[in-house]
Amino acid sequence: MSYSVVFHVDLADPARLGLALTNIDNYLNALPEEQFETVMVVNGPAVQLFKTAEAPHAAQIKALQERGASFRLCANALRKFDIARQDLLADCIVVPAGVVEIVQLQQKGFAYIKP
Amino acid sequence: MSYSVVFHVDLADPARLGLALTNIDNYLNALPEEQFETVMVVNGPAVQLFKTAEAPHAAQIKALQERGASFRLCANALRKFDIARQDLLADCIVVPAGVVEIVQLQQKGFAYIKP
Amino acid sequence: MSYSVVFHVDLADPARLGLALTNIDNYLNALPEEQFETVMVVNGPAVQLFKTAEAPHAAQIKALQERGASFRLCANALRKFDIARQDLLADCIVVPAGVVEIVQLQQKGFAYIKP
Repeated sequence: MSYSVVFHVDLADPARLGLALTNIDNYLNALPEEQFETVMVVNGPAVQLFKTAEAPHAAQIKALQERGASFRLCANALRKFDIARQDLLADCIVVPAGVVEIVQLQQKGFAYIKP
Repeated sequence: MSYSVVFHVDLADPARLGLALTNIDNYLNALPEEQFETVMVVNGPAVQLFKTAEAPHAAQIKALQERGASFRLCANALRKFDIARQDLLADCIVVPAGVVEIVQLQQKGFAYIKP
Repeated sequence: MSYSVVFHVDLADPARLGLALTNIDNYLNALPEEQFETVMVVNGPAVQLFKTAEAPHAAQIKALQERGASFRLCANALRKFDIARQDLLADCIVVPAGVVEIVQLQQKGFAYIKP
């Protein structure tokens, strides 16, 4: 079976993002032998938590990226909250629409978790 | 692949409903060439946001309905919050149980998003 | 089609847990003729709501268990919040990682609902 999974974060709530990051950490720890993709899709006000200048969980995000997790931010949300790409944490991917990304991943067989 | 998707709303929080409606708007804008169904299933306290007399997002809901989105409200929740069908926004569909509707749509291949 | 479903609860919010339990009650009531599994996976701070000494919804959980619903708690979260197994409500199952459980159930064909 496939263990690929998309975690969805949309609130500008550092505690909720922290919970989602802990989810990913636990997930990766639990499956050391498996091959799969772990993606966090961030849309809505939550994109503000990925601005380099104020990112409350920058170190944890970087550590998860180094373990293979991918962070994808919604371009619509970045536009709405007036955030430029160069102001984002390193290695975050910008996708045209977060909701489309989530649906495409589910259609590819990814499970969906909303922390 | 299928782009059909169900958005689930259950909190009586106008901001959260607004986020879900923006999700649908972005979704429809992103896929002008595709054929799919977009459904919002509303259960729990959120059904109160669909009473005509006080609906905080009535115009946006109507605009999305005109673009094909379907809004389906849980009869159990309407009973619990003592809301009559004639007091609801136009063209909202009442389903017997919101949770059953969500599961049936996923089994039909719809992706699930919880804003 | 399969009506099996996993409900995911992670916040230490009694009202939100109550909403999820009502979801399960409505779900079971709606499908008296069907055979399926109903599972609640609890991770994150929500595990605190399952300590016998202070469980705000103990009676409702017991009633749903008697109707076949399964409650599965994340061992990572129990460790984090320093909760011993003997302090939990009766018949709750402890799983190694809540997020893995959720993904495995989805891969087995369960629908996912996040109340």
